[in-house]
Amino acid sequence: MTVAYKQQSADRLQESLGLVQRLIERQRQLEHLATRPDAVETAADPLALQHNLQELGHKLSQLHPADIAHVLEALPLEDRLLAWDLTDPSRDGSVLLEVSDAVRESLIEVMEPDELVAALDELDADELAELAPDLPRQVVYEAMGRLDEEERGQLQAVLSYDDDRVGALMDFELVKIRADVSCEVVLRYLRRFDELPGQTDKIFVTDEAGLLKGVLSVRKLLVSDPDTLVAEAMATEVVSFHPDEPAVDAAQAFERYDLVSAPVVDERGALLGRLTVDAMVDVIREESDSEMLNLAGLKEEEDLFAPVIDSVKNRWSWLAINLCTAFFASRVIGAFEHSIAQLVALAALMPIVAGIGGNSGNQTITMIVRALAMGQMQLGQAGRLWRKELGVSVINGMVWGGVIGAVAWLLYGSVSLGLVMLAAMTLNLMLAATMGVMIPTLMQKLGKDPALGSSVLITACTDSGGFLIFLGLATLFLL
Amino acid sequence: MTVAYKQQSADRLQESLGLVQRLIERQRQLEHLATRPDAVETAADPLALQHNLQELGHKLSQLHPADIAHVLEALPLEDRLLAWDLTDPSRDGSVLLEVSDAVRESLIEVMEPDELVAALDELDADELAELAPDLPRQVVYEAMGRLDEEERGQLQAVLSYDDDRVGALMDFELVKIRADVSCEVVLRYLRRFDELPGQTDKIFVTDEAGLLKGVLSVRKLLVSDPDTLVAEAMATEVVSFHPDEPAVDAAQAFERYDLVSAPVVDERGALLGRLTVDAMVDVIREESDSEMLNLAGLKEEEDLFAPVIDSVKNRWSWLAINLCTAFFASRVIGAFEHSIAQLVALAALMPIVAGIGGNSGNQTITMIVRALAMGQMQLGQAGRLWRKELGVSVINGMVWGGVIGAVAWLLYGSVSLGLVMLAAMTLNLMLAATMGVMIPTLMQKLGKDPALGSSVLITACTDSGGFLIFLGLATLFLL
Repeated sequence: MTVAYKQQSADRLQESLGLVQRLIERQRQLEHLATRPDAVETAADPLALQHNLQELGHKLSQLHPADIAHVLEALPLEDRLLAWDLTDPSRDGSVLLEVSDAVRESLIEVMEPDELVAALDELDADELAELAPDLPRQVVYEAMGRLDEEERGQLQAVLSYDDDRVGALMDFELVKIRADVSCEVVLRYLRRFDELPGQTDKIFVTDEAGLLKGVLSVRKLLVSDPDTLVAEAMATEVVSFHPDEPAVDAAQAFERYDLVSAPVVDERGALLGRLTVDAMVDVIREESDSEMLNLAGLKEEEDLFAPVIDSVKNRWSWLAINLCTAFFASRVIGAFEHSIAQLVALAALMPIVAGIGGNSGNQTITMIVRALAMGQMQLGQAGRLWRKELGVSVINGMVWGGVIGAVAWLLYGSVSLGLVMLAAMTLNLMLAATMGVMIPTLMQKLGKDPALGSSVLITACTDSGGFLIFLGLATLFLL
Repeated sequence: MTVAYKQQSADRLQESLGLVQRLIERQRQLEHLATRPDAVETAADPLALQHNLQELGHKLSQLHPADIAHVLEALPLEDRLLAWDLTDPSRDGSVLLEVSDAVRESLIEVMEPDELVAALDELDADELAELAPDLPRQVVYEAMGRLDEEERGQLQAVLSYDDDRVGALMDFELVKIRADVSCEVVLRYLRRFDELPGQTDKIFVTDEAGLLKGVLSVRKLLVSDPDTLVAEAMATEVVSFHPDEPAVDAAQAFERYDLVSAPVVDERGALLGRLTVDAMVDVIREESDSEMLNLAGLKEEEDLFAPVIDSVKNRWSWLAINLCTAFFASRVIGAFEHSIAQLVALAALMPIVAGIGGNSGNQTITMIVRALAMGQMQLGQAGRLWRKELGVSVINGMVWGGVIGAVAWLLYGSVSLGLVMLAAMTLNLMLAATMGVMIPTLMQKLGKDPALGSSVLITACTDSGGFLIFLGLATLFLL
């Protein structure tokens, strides 16, 4: 896309969103008036309907594709489809690139195959690759047929890598030069472009075989004497990535070294493409989003206005797991029904022991998950961190267990009940600390995402464990 | 800093970390041998000790400041301080900029005031401003005294804004030009720099009064004819930010428009400084981190190897709140002790109702918190989303409540107990949906962070509410 659309501040964007929403609402009212059989005489002028739609289309046409995407995300499904219908078809492709997966699905669903093929026409191979998994197979083939051979090769290369690998995020729009020319020549060469690719902060220096020899940063090019050779001005120690490296590792390197773009090379050192910071920002955003969603028990990003049944499906699996663990905890209590029947205060106090354990365990697990994700914690240090978390839990157990034990003593007039409460709290917090360190480190050792299910698992342990410890101690010492 | 240190891939960085850790371990063993009174003859050669330290220092000196920061984050406190001691003092400042707040504190604590002042010598005004809140007041004054007047003004400007505002993240290293010169002149002007500021993807065009007239992107400069005037080549519709805008809004604009840098202007339109994408990446990272930490009940980022007492303090407040809500839930149960004494199965079943409600409520709240944070949800849509979430909860309640009701019927042989279970599950899930939408929207309306405490509050509602609904229904219909 060569047309630049106006970029807007956050406030202005929210204003635009509000305006679009008001226009759509007015449209709905007009439509409603026009179709009311009982009041034909007050029916809205079809011209007013038409005029309103035009105004809406005009407003949308002024927006940047990323802003149209934002507006579409914030609209309920039927309004979203109306706005989508009014969006200039030549921008459909770039808008589809910007929306979230969930919303993208809802938009693609209502498009005809030929509309889709037309929308893809504007896109580069790497952009096409980003959309491909969500498109009907037939549409992808047709779009591929319109690419030239080089682009088709690029598309296939990108599609051959998993979503979470560097290769899937490669961009092929880059500027290559040779090392044996002067900066003057490079400047003249660049002037022959209509436009340089976005995020061009460095130019890649390759030899005849396509091997990466170094990079010439644009900042360096601009301050260099025109007669300097590229070979002298370029940097040869370059952070480069392999296409099968994890994308999150690359994103962390961008973050650490404040990179704007970086080369992707194969094992021979041949330049395949480049990564840019905008794609890495998306990786960082998605990574922390998916950690948060996983911790909350949502399978994946959900369209805010998804039909009820889609939301049910998305949340189904974690609720089912939670149900099993809750049922297990319930059976633990069931095993002590005899004790509870004798001392019914136990039923009231046991959720406190379980609840505090769950909260504390979630604190530990969140810390460990983050440290593992950031590469700050090595598996060999699990023992050391476990000892530290045990220390924290003993202190917390003594203090909070003491408080709640004292309250139990006052409420129920039994010192020994208070002492059992204190002991159970401390032991369950120690269990929470142990599992809080063990679960994510084990997950990592098994090559799984340490965030996945951690919260549900730790709560399962502290619930069942808490009930078992408290009711067990009570049965031993109180009855 | 003009020296470029080698940047490393993720694997290489982990290798470096491992090597540093092995060297430190060897050092500890040598020290131990050298001080063992019972085995003087096997005591390590002081030369070996010295040699090992040199090797460690050499390894550290090869690392990029961001990598030293990474290594320090991953080391336990005493090892971290040994490594910090061996770090070249001239790089102390840039390493301090890269470490997390918690680790920064631990490093600053062991530094003498004059070491600190020396470390700050290398830093720009905006970098100094970033460290200032963590430094002893006296050190800040001394460092300020060494700045020239312009820099002192910049430092004071940055310090006058809250942490979470654009103004606090401004950078003053930028290139300014006039509109009435040709691109050729600009290129010659740039060549007079030794080095252009990092992340320079655009040059700012100002008039005599310092007002921003437009920006000339470097990409445009490079493809423009040398005779073109800046006024013709520059873009005049520019996304710019005000210093008192929220930093997260700016970060979202960077994300939407794939920006690398953007101007910060005052209300008259005078150029104050610029924002760069590396600072915005940090904002995005911190924003999602703090959401995650808030949801988990951690007050702030915690040093993985913090002393036990610091960790206790960091987690104290949420645990205390949790204790109060758990105690309240316990009193709800206490009010039904009479019912439980009659039908002890209630004690075993009630945590299932509460647990599933909590899980489901957390799913809803996570969705709403994210949608609010991303500006995808307007407060006016709360009602619509609430109806949707109610629909989800009714379906889930019928299905899962049905399953667990059937199990309860089979286990305890009572149809009516199963029906009460079904009804209580459905009602508690509806409560979870209602509070899951209400809590974050209310928080937002009150101008608070919608993530803050959301998880603890929703769990409090679904626990107390779940116990009340289930035990209440059971008391009405079963006893």
